[in-house]
Amino acid sequence: MPAVVETGRQRGIIMPIGGAEDKIREPRVLKRFVGLCGQNPRIVVIPTASSRKDIGSEYTKLFSELGAANVDVLNLIEREQCFDERVIDLLNAADGVFMTGGKQMRLSTTLGGTPVAKVLRRLNADGKPVAGTSAGAAIIPEHMIASGDEGATPHEGMVTLAPGLGFTNKVMVDQHFRQRDRIGRLITALAYNPFAVGLGIDEDTAAIIHSDNVIEVIGSGAVTIVDPSQLTHTSIDEAERGAPVSMINLRVHILVEGGRFDLERRAARL
Amino acid sequence: MPAVVETGRQRGIIMPIGGAEDKIREPRVLKRFVGLCGQNPRIVVIPTASSRKDIGSEYTKLFSELGAANVDVLNLIEREQCFDERVIDLLNAADGVFMTGGKQMRLSTTLGGTPVAKVLRRLNADGKPVAGTSAGAAIIPEHMIASGDEGATPHEGMVTLAPGLGFTNKVMVDQHFRQRDRIGRLITALAYNPFAVGLGIDEDTAAIIHSDNVIEVIGSGAVTIVDPSQLTHTSIDEAERGAPVSMINLRVHILVEGGRFDLERRAARL
Repeated sequence: MPAVVETGRQRGIIMPIGGAEDKIREPRVLKRFVGLCGQNPRIVVIPTASSRKDIGSEYTKLFSELGAANVDVLNLIEREQCFDERVIDLLNAADGVFMTGGKQMRLSTTLGGTPVAKVLRRLNADGKPVAGTSAGAAIIPEHMIASGDEGATPHEGMVTLAPGLGFTNKVMVDQHFRQRDRIGRLITALAYNPFAVGLGIDEDTAAIIHSDNVIEVIGSGAVTIVDPSQLTHTSIDEAERGAPVSMINLRVHILVEGGRFDLERRAARL
Repeated sequence: MPAVVETGRQRGIIMPIGGAEDKIREPRVLKRFVGLCGQNPRIVVIPTASSRKDIGSEYTKLFSELGAANVDVLNLIEREQCFDERVIDLLNAADGVFMTGGKQMRLSTTLGGTPVAKVLRRLNADGKPVAGTSAGAAIIPEHMIASGDEGATPHEGMVTLAPGLGFTNKVMVDQHFRQRDRIGRLITALAYNPFAVGLGIDEDTAAIIHSDNVIEVIGSGAVTIVDPSQLTHTSIDEAERGAPVSMINLRVHILVEGGRFDLERRAARL
């Protein structure tokens, strides 16, 4: 669950990115993140999801070129590292936190229930931006899409949910959205309990969730917003294993750069 | 997520029951629930999980015999009923709410994201007891065990999680615990993100979660408490589909009637 925002403060932006963000030609999404962290910010990179050894240094170089004064890579591999006071001190000094891609379950099993997870939520509640790409985006909500099948038609058992880091409980996030044909599994996840708004984020695209819970889309793709608040019926509670599932009255918006969606009022605008 | 408890108030007790509670010989668990609702209470029964038509009248008779002044059965079958103001008014007049057994996904798909779900959390935050048996217990936490396989050894894909009603995010609940051999699926659910405490509740047994987050066990069986806070390692993030999963340093307590567990301090006592 998100940490409590103290009176007079605003939580920081939450920025799930759909993966494969442009790092060379026109790194618009990453540049925006650095800008949101303030002047000459100190950025912490968490590469836990990835098995690539060079991913930390890749983002260090990128964020430095984009204006970060300092980039620290926190190589958290074992749970016991997440109890280390030096790690907590580094995090507390950050102006923004970025989680790389890889496997979201590596993040949840390593950080979940440790002081690092608590401090990350505290930082965000105190106003610091938190961003993540691909697996780093999936881990952002309270309810995380851990894995699932491709395809457009929702069916029972299509998606595996697990607890995420819980920066917000207003959305569920899926990424590489069009590239991997994931609308079926996002709708399946919403069907279980139609309280959240689904965000299907394309590659090189981000949904910036501002402190007033208005989402702003940025990047070269789209964000597909699936709002089940007017749902009158789903058959997922009665469906056999693997059977297709009916859903009546979903509302869907496709938003490209500049588009906005208000999570409180459940309303989209260009 | 739980509704915010206002300053100077205490949230009501949360009482997951393991199913098949004694209704005839010595209805200790149900009697305790009625007692916790106050003098001559007004109780609302939500039979949504069940497909049995007579379950509402069965609990009406039971709760009346045990001292309830009034029992209202809210037959919520369609989502649109959960937006009805008369339903909300009835709920707001309740001194306690009881959810029957059946299928937990019927509860989450019908109530999830509706005003009924919000009012239930509000009532509990304002001090009113909420209890549920079997499926009605599973729906209580933020992260609900929706279904899974039997057996003692956790393995990848053994459990399906879905968002519950979110009265608390400190525990995950499994029920009919020994009777249906469910410790494997409870541990699997905890492995995904080891932040919550697992409660495996036997039949005719309840875990009363008091407002100070101390759990009290009551009934003829036991509550198995699985605490992953000192977990050093799990392999679930790397496991193949269906493969067994390693977990290092789980702490387990088996508590019978009168036993207590403090969710804040993570400590058990007899």
